[in-house]
Amino acid sequence: MTWQDSVAPTTERRLTAAGRRTRERIVRAAAGLVFRRGVAGTSIPDVQQAAGVSASQIYHYFGDKQGLVRAVVDHQVTATLDRQRPALDHLDSFAALRAWCEETVAGQARRGCEGGCEIGSLAGELVETGPDTRAELVAAFERWEAPIRAGLVRMQRSGELDASADVHDLATVLLTSLQGGLLLAQVRRSVHPLKAATDAAIAYVESFAARPRPEMGPGTEPPARDLPDRVREP
Amino acid sequence: MTWQDSVAPTTERRLTAAGRRTRERIVRAAAGLVFRRGVAGTSIPDVQQAAGVSASQIYHYFGDKQGLVRAVVDHQVTATLDRQRPALDHLDSFAALRAWCEETVAGQARRGCEGGCEIGSLAGELVETGPDTRAELVAAFERWEAPIRAGLVRMQRSGELDASADVHDLATVLLTSLQGGLLLAQVRRSVHPLKAATDAAIAYVESFAARPRPEMGPGTEPPARDLPDRVREP
Repeated sequence: MTWQDSVAPTTERRLTAAGRRTRERIVRAAAGLVFRRGVAGTSIPDVQQAAGVSASQIYHYFGDKQGLVRAVVDHQVTATLDRQRPALDHLDSFAALRAWCEETVAGQARRGCEGGCEIGSLAGELVETGPDTRAELVAAFERWEAPIRAGLVRMQRSGELDASADVHDLATVLLTSLQGGLLLAQVRRSVHPLKAATDAAIAYVESFAARPRPEMGPGTEPPARDLPDRVREP
Repeated sequence: MTWQDSVAPTTERRLTAAGRRTRERIVRAAAGLVFRRGVAGTSIPDVQQAAGVSASQIYHYFGDKQGLVRAVVDHQVTATLDRQRPALDHLDSFAALRAWCEETVAGQARRGCEGGCEIGSLAGELVETGPDTRAELVAAFERWEAPIRAGLVRMQRSGELDASADVHDLATVLLTSLQGGLLLAQVRRSVHPLKAATDAAIAYVESFAARPRPEMGPGTEPPARDLPDRVREP
């Protein structure tokens, strides 16, 4: 049997506790290899050796390589999002958005900007490999964007973000700033591109802050701008 | 001889005209395969067949696979930047920046958002494969960022952009918005993420517009904001 052959995998919910543990061990081993070498650089014998299982066990649980790859995507998304909780579940103020981005920058600094974004790297390698895998990546990014968007909706309800702001657009802007910033940071081994990208995205979101319109008249200062504008500073 | 063996490649400048043509044919064939299948999915026999050359010719010109890969990176950067000229060389107004991003969005729409960014895709796959290749990627992004930065400097000289704006940061923000937006657009097969990301980046750059500070006093309107803020609109 080769990687190209497909057999019906045993679905996760039918597994015994021991089966779930074996499946999990295979996924973890594969995810570690894929993170270091990419999908194309990871063979079934590599996964066998790293997980201490037979090839037939891998086919039993995942059907084919695409099935294992999709399980790796799901695993990486879950791991990446779990690391970001509880921050991701509480992105309901400008301060929380900023703290979340700063923590992402600090996390990259701690690992010397090596490895980049687990999800973005998988996406770049896999997006053109087939519709099922692309659908898995669409779902992965949606799982990341949904809590960002939910936080922005809560900011609208609490009156911090203007009701007219397009929370779908703003969530996408935050996510793309992370993806672009993480890639450039990884290439340059510097957090600077990630910091510049996320600072700009947050400043853009902050420009939709809901604030009462100040009364204009003699001696009234113009409203403070969210984005720097040195010209107007005294 | 395998891919892992390295022999000194014949440098480009020592080649005859016929040699340069052969080398160029190999690079083009390899770049096309890499764009469709990724580096790991492209073998030397694939390149031989696509270019109609022998393996020894490939080793003669490139030394090893890493040498060929670096040549592919250089080729893709040149092709990508050539397509964007003369726009890239004239990014010296907000209108020009906006037109350039709109053309990038339109270009993605024309190809159904398939394929993503040639440079970004190569970067994602290759950045962790070795220091020489990473250095090639650093140079690739710098070749892209430099004309963006140069345009911003010209905007400062012409008085359109404030002199205090950090043109290095702003150029990085524009480039990361393209990278993040292109990846999400490719995954979702929609130009929307690219448009949202670049619109936000340009609005951020525009917030550094140089303008005379208006006199404040009775009846004076507050300065117009660069970013939308519906609250302040009448």
